[in-house]
Amino acid sequence: MTTRQRILAASEELFRRQGYAGTGVKAILASSQAPYGSLYHFFPGGKEELGAAALRAGGETYRELVETIFEPGADVVAATRACFEGAAELVAATGYADACPIATVALEVASTSEPMRQAAAEAFESWLAVLTERFVAAGIAEPRARELAIELFCAIEGAFLLSRTTRSTEALTIAGRATAAAVAGALREAAASGDAAGS
Amino acid sequence: MTTRQRILAASEELFRRQGYAGTGVKAILASSQAPYGSLYHFFPGGKEELGAAALRAGGETYRELVETIFEPGADVVAATRACFEGAAELVAATGYADACPIATVALEVASTSEPMRQAAAEAFESWLAVLTERFVAAGIAEPRARELAIELFCAIEGAFLLSRTTRSTEALTIAGRATAAAVAGALREAAASGDAAGS
Repeated sequence: MTTRQRILAASEELFRRQGYAGTGVKAILASSQAPYGSLYHFFPGGKEELGAAALRAGGETYRELVETIFEPGADVVAATRACFEGAAELVAATGYADACPIATVALEVASTSEPMRQAAAEAFESWLAVLTERFVAAGIAEPRARELAIELFCAIEGAFLLSRTTRSTEALTIAGRATAAAVAGALREAAASGDAAGS
Repeated sequence: MTTRQRILAASEELFRRQGYAGTGVKAILASSQAPYGSLYHFFPGGKEELGAAALRAGGETYRELVETIFEPGADVVAATRACFEGAAELVAATGYADACPIATVALEVASTSEPMRQAAAEAFESWLAVLTERFVAAGIAEPRARELAIELFCAIEGAFLLSRTTRSTEALTIAGRATAAAVAGALREAAASGDAAGS
């Protein structure tokens, strides 16, 4: 890993676990074992530029994760279930520390930093785009496919919040079951309207 | 308002909009027009004690709001719809600044402050208790009633995150429609199993 990559990886982890404002530049440098001047060398805009870069990097990592779970041709109901089950395993395995790499910072900066808000919005939209595409490929027409993508997003993000706060995976289990049922229902409706159109 | 109430109200608003770590004690005192020593007089545990008190106060305000929207005997499907519609109006009216009074701080402190995490968890649980009670009163048996309460919570919290970040109420509209449909479905199932039991 280059120094820049180490700084970015350390920032991503610290921001996700304890927020943007609660993470000092000193803690980032200590965790990434980088010399002081290097942060401003690689991120001339300082902490805010680093924050936006960390949001973009976290957004990309999770987009790849969504693409892996919802691989082309996959059963989207099973993939939805796998998404929530994997999330439950992750939060439990990390002592309820690791969840969404964007949410904490997104809520902190939504009203205070326009560059960081935009980076978070682009990350979220990139996940919604993958999900929408996969639901469309499974036979669910727009705009229902995008609605389902948003329903899945809201359910898992809300469940991350409740799980981390209550130190229980119950919310992820319940939200995952409900979302998988919604996806299965949309598939049935799509098949029924396809049958009706074909008959 | 007493000085203590002014400090608490200012903290609630600042924490909700820009997070806990991003809000300095000086900003709280300036916003509440309180003298410096008064914060430590009323909150000897300092900022962390103030943070926990703000989470409890915000939790109580929102519990009362949930009790008002889901008034005893209310149509729980219409109440669910009203809950998301009111939320959409609030975030749009405040320039996407005001949403959940707990979520931002809860994510920030979930892994770093046990007293604040517990205060947030108690606030969330108090909302879930009201919702569960109302769903039970509407004829939906446990454990389905609690599951629905958790589904509603996750949907609205996830939608708050997406709405504030993308500056759009789309997520609240979509999540609200899906949750109202889930509540209507649970009512139909409860009625059907009641008919089956009675026949």
